[in-house]
Formats: sequence, structure tokens, C-alpha cells
Amino acid sequence: MARPLTDLDAGREQLIDLVIEIIEERGSAAVTVTELAARAQMSPASLYRYYESKEALIEAVAGRWFQPMVAMMEEVLASDLPPRRKMYEFYARRFVHMRKIWQRDPVAFKTYCELGEEHFEQVRSYVDLGDHYLGTIIGEAMADGHFDGLELDEAISLVNQMTSVYCNIGPMQYLFPKLTEAKLARIVDALFDGLSGQDRGAKGVTGLRVA
Amino acid sequence: MARPLTDLDAGREQLIDLVIEIIEERGSAAVTVTELAARAQMSPASLYRYYESKEALIEAVAGRWFQPMVAMMEEVLASDLPPRRKMYEFYARRFVHMRKIWQRDPVAFKTYCELGEEHFEQVRSYVDLGDHYLGTIIGEAMADGHFDGLELDEAISLVNQMTSVYCNIGPMQYLFPKLTEAKLARIVDALFDGLSGQDRGAKGVTGLRVA
Repeated sequence: MARPLTDLDAGREQLIDLVIEIIEERGSAAVTVTELAARAQMSPASLYRYYESKEALIEAVAGRWFQPMVAMMEEVLASDLPPRRKMYEFYARRFVHMRKIWQRDPVAFKTYCELGEEHFEQVRSYVDLGDHYLGTIIGEAMADGHFDGLELDEAISLVNQMTSVYCNIGPMQYLFPKLTEAKLARIVDALFDGLSGQDRGAKGVTGLRVA
Repeated sequence: MARPLTDLDAGREQLIDLVIEIIEERGSAAVTVTELAARAQMSPASLYRYYESKEALIEAVAGRWFQPMVAMMEEVLASDLPPRRKMYEFYARRFVHMRKIWQRDPVAFKTYCELGEEHFEQVRSYVDLGDHYLGTIIGEAMADGHFDGLELDEAISLVNQMTSVYCNIGPMQYLFPKLTEAKLARIVDALFDGLSGQDRGAKGVTGLRVA
């Protein structure tokens, strides 16, 4: 979208830049109207011309964080790769992107985790979008005979759970030294070759209950 | 171990009870020497007769938290269940135990998560013990032909990653409504039926690298 920015849009983008600057220099607790107004050389009241609330501003910062990852997901979805490869790329590209952010500044990465936790409402739509795209890939895999016997929603939930450490920044930040693209690939292969709703007979554990 | 407690042991146990009381009533930030001494009706200096440092006290609280789960792991390991069933019980029993704690008091559960994060050094030995027991189960599964082509350490790491949401309290606290024993069983079945180091040929994604 190379349309020219209006003054309002440009002001909004500049404020996002400044919020990110505050987050990366001083942590999320320092993101206050006073601090932001000082950096923007505006009165606190003028900030409200650009964002009607702090929540709206945080939502815009979340948008900046997720935008490249949404683009990655859409590129993978639009490709003509087979479903297994699509699922790998779906996770791997975003994982590599997040690892770069973490490598550049682990403390800022931790701050983004905390912000996401505190403002989950502003993040939820991206989680839902990710589930939607994942469901599309799983649907294609099902058409090829994978995940036999599972409902689509059940398969989405199981795949989310089994790949959680490569996708959710909270746990990821502590595990980076143990996370690799090679392991992710083994997990995706295990999903495609092992995850199903088929009855395993006596050898399986599905259906057991803990006493 | 039903040996009679010495006065020192009894005092230590009582202080752990009081720390848990403070955590559950007021959160981890309220665990201070002053607060604990007041509840124990002791001088702050007397506390050091029982624990030489706050770290030693936190370690004792971690011991109380992990003790029932260590017992669960040891019971599963000592059983003559087949390896797949052992792995399921290894995770499921602890998951059900933690879910009960969360259901009783989600805020206290969050406090335990924060404490574990802040004092990871006091928790590490339990994580290592869990890895050791998991390695034993995986070794038994390998003897039955599972996880073919994987090194033991690699298999431990992959299984840890794929089951992370059923074992690590940090991510677990946000996911409880989506976590079930039935899904855990499907994940364990997927692991046993799909996870290996075998070459999948053209269909597999192992060995790919993100550009």
C-alpha cells in the first residue's frame, strides 16, 4: 500500500515509532502519556488527536509488531507448496523473524512479551487470524488424507499445542537456545505422520483417563 | 519418611506453610523477612536459625511444590506399564494435579508461575530430574523401536517441546480451558507414531532451511 500518508496517518506512525523507542529504551512501564508527549514535543491533549486512548495506541503498536508476520503467513498460504511444507514455512518464517528480534535485544523482547500479556485483547485478533490460516493449511492436509478422524477445530488446537514453543513469544523467550529449524521440521513431520483421530487399538493411549 | 521431626525440621516446615499462606493471600511481592517474621511471631534474626537465606527458603517452597509431582513421576517410572502409557501418565498425572491447584485459586497459581520465573535457579534441579525420568521412558520406547534414528538427547528435547503446554506452568496458566487429557493422549500417540529421525524422502520437511 504505497498510498501517500495523510498528516494524521504520518503523525500516528511517528507516535508508534516513539512508543517503540520508549519500550526498547526503558521498558513497557515507561510508556505513559506524559513520556510520549514529551518525546513527541506535543501537549498530552494533542496525542488524543492521533489516538483516542492508550488502548488504541497499544493496538497500533501490536499492528506494527504483527504486520510482517501476517505478510509471511499470507505469502505461505498463497504459495503452491504442498501442505506439509506450507505448515513448516508457516511456523519457521515467523520463528526466524522473532529470533532476530530477540537476538538484537532480548530485554526489549521480554518487554514485548509482557505487553502482549497485559494487553491480550489487542492481540487476540492476530491469534484468531493465525488460527484461521492454520485451519486452511490443515484443511488442505486433510484433503490429502492427513489428520484422519479429527475434526478441523480439534486438529487446529492439537497442532497449536504441539508447536506452541515455536509460535508463542512468552515461552519462546526462555527456550531460544533449544529451538532450531531442524527440530521444528521434525515436529511438523511427526504431526503429519503421527497425528490422527484413528483408533490405535490396545497400543494407543487415547481414551485413557487419569484416576 | 515418617521419621519424627526435630524442632528444627518442624520450624522449617511451619515457615514453609507461612510463606505459602502469604503467597496465596497477598502474592509473591509480599514474601519479605518482615512479613514472615511477623506471622511466625519471631524476630527477623531468628528466621535465620531455620533458613540461612531467602533463596534457601524459596528452595524449600519449591521443594514443597514439586514433591508430589516427583512422587508421581517415580510411581510411573516404577510401574510395569508399556512406554507409551508411561509417557502419557508421566504428563497426565502432573497436569491433572496442577489443574486442581489452578482451579482452586488461579491467582495463586499465577503467583507460583512468577516465583518460578524469578527463582529459576531454585527450580532447575527439578527440571533436570524431569528430563532424566523422561529420558528413561524414551530409552524404553527406543528399545521397542520408537523414535528411530534420533539421539536420546534430541528425542528428550523434541518430546519436551511438543508437550510443553502440559508441563510448563507459565504457558499452561493461559491455556487451561483448551487443555484436556484427551488431547494430551492424542499428542502422545502422535509422538509415538510420528516422531523419528528417519528420512522421509521428498515428502518430509526435515533438512529444509528458511531462506
